[in-house]
Amino acid sequence: MGEFELIQKHFLPLARSGSNGALVLGPGDDCAIQRIPPGRDLVFSIDTMVEGIHFPESYPPEYLGWRVLAAAASDLAAMGAEPACFTLALTLPEADDHWLTGFARGLADASQTFRLALAGGDTTRGPLSLSVQVHGTVAEGRGLKRSGTRAGDLICVSGTLGDAGAALDYLQEAQPTDDMAQLLERYHHPHPRLELGESLIGLATSAIDISDGLMADLGHILEASKAGATIDPALIPLSPALSRLKGAHAVDYALNAGDDYELCVTIPEALWQGASDVIRDQMTVIGTVNRDAGLHIKDSPSLSDRPGAGFDHFRSKA
Amino acid sequence: MGEFELIQKHFLPLARSGSNGALVLGPGDDCAIQRIPPGRDLVFSIDTMVEGIHFPESYPPEYLGWRVLAAAASDLAAMGAEPACFTLALTLPEADDHWLTGFARGLADASQTFRLALAGGDTTRGPLSLSVQVHGTVAEGRGLKRSGTRAGDLICVSGTLGDAGAALDYLQEAQPTDDMAQLLERYHHPHPRLELGESLIGLATSAIDISDGLMADLGHILEASKAGATIDPALIPLSPALSRLKGAHAVDYALNAGDDYELCVTIPEALWQGASDVIRDQMTVIGTVNRDAGLHIKDSPSLSDRPGAGFDHFRSKA
Repeated sequence: MGEFELIQKHFLPLARSGSNGALVLGPGDDCAIQRIPPGRDLVFSIDTMVEGIHFPESYPPEYLGWRVLAAAASDLAAMGAEPACFTLALTLPEADDHWLTGFARGLADASQTFRLALAGGDTTRGPLSLSVQVHGTVAEGRGLKRSGTRAGDLICVSGTLGDAGAALDYLQEAQPTDDMAQLLERYHHPHPRLELGESLIGLATSAIDISDGLMADLGHILEASKAGATIDPALIPLSPALSRLKGAHAVDYALNAGDDYELCVTIPEALWQGASDVIRDQMTVIGTVNRDAGLHIKDSPSLSDRPGAGFDHFRSKA
Repeated sequence: MGEFELIQKHFLPLARSGSNGALVLGPGDDCAIQRIPPGRDLVFSIDTMVEGIHFPESYPPEYLGWRVLAAAASDLAAMGAEPACFTLALTLPEADDHWLTGFARGLADASQTFRLALAGGDTTRGPLSLSVQVHGTVAEGRGLKRSGTRAGDLICVSGTLGDAGAALDYLQEAQPTDDMAQLLERYHHPHPRLELGESLIGLATSAIDISDGLMADLGHILEASKAGATIDPALIPLSPALSRLKGAHAVDYALNAGDDYELCVTIPEALWQGASDVIRDQMTVIGTVNRDAGLHIKDSPSLSDRPGAGFDHFRSKA
């Protein structure tokens, strides 16, 4: 089966999912065409996943289809953007129908769940890797950025942290316990905080998604905002499963491990106090922005007391 | 040098080139933000190039930087879009400063020439491959498509065809002749027809860029438009260099070889007669659209008498 038939069979159905009718022209021409509603800005981000670097070899294709779109969509959540569509550049060693069926199923699930319609793509032969670009829109000039926080703002994170990172320890587990299975689910099926992100516009003074670890990603906010922060590790939300499995080390995963795709944002205290229950229920205050440079971890001399360097693919192990 | 320093050094300067101020937010945040002018649609396309498939191993990085952006920009030309910006997903085996310097130089030249500012990207480690997504805009509803041609329309191509494809025969030439050098220049430094594409809006009833070969790409137009065509190979524009090097076989390259990044469009005869000299000087009429299915090559029983199957990466040799 050739490239065109492959695309037709597996990917064209995804062009019709998604929700918002922004696509004037979908896959199959030289370009796709998207109409941006008046008063909205286009928000977009491209993410690459390479086999052996961002996911294990022989990783189940259905999980991969979900994860690659979820990871990219998380960047839209961090900007407070409403999802619109995506493109997929898929490079794979051979046109394996079984693999593609699983991959397309995971991708289709994510496409529908995140309301991102397939707009176009490119399928090529080579070592397995994927680049996904997601498109969303936000009211003009209102997109959340990494810069903008000020001393006194509260630092808030969504959900629980460290689960996906700790799951990497159990990927090879033949008989995972219930706790392990909970963490593995966080790794295989991350749920970017798209609705929460949209609802934070007007509240958050800065935002980022936690893909590289809390320390690293909060460090990016502080660097972009030219500010410092103090966080209290005792306040970091941990799942019961992570606490049971990792004990006192759970907080290390929460601080340093990536792949959670939760949000880390800063919110002025008065706005936080007035925020809706829906928002407050999804988020936890873990510290405060201050004027001193650097990221300080309260009462924890044993923990690294500096902004993380960020996940660095050229320093990371394959 | 880590990923962040690499990006900073080599790619951030490209965020400031380009021309049109459409970027509200460039590289360095979770997403980029582009403002689309009122009354315009966003036009976008993603293209992947893999080492050993789309370019030879050890291909000079400066040529690669130009080619990858030129090839992607050619899809904007085919839609009649005005260029705006691009994203780059770059996967490379190691952070080689020498390679990156050359690559960034070629990319910067193309970025300035095509008025495409770098909006964002992702740099990862792995086997060398690149995905580029280009963004442009076009007046709402006016983008050129592959569909839309009707019987009687003239088939027109820009420039000369076959040069870049024939150049592949001379890539290893230690002492290329002047003629070979002319073809090699077409391969290494393609110039997508961006201005011509924009000027064809209102004239062309369908359009495509010739990346996979005239037969294949005209075949895409005919399929999308549910039409047939007859072309006269004697009318296909050939460069003197190609004719001298390939003799009677020159037309085979023009019909079947890719990488030219010229335009193939259909124009109603009355509009063609009234077109400006600027447009008529850049294009050649090579045939006519008709109602019969298929692509007929006039007076040439030796030539394939069917629409090309298109360049197919899963059938092509590495």
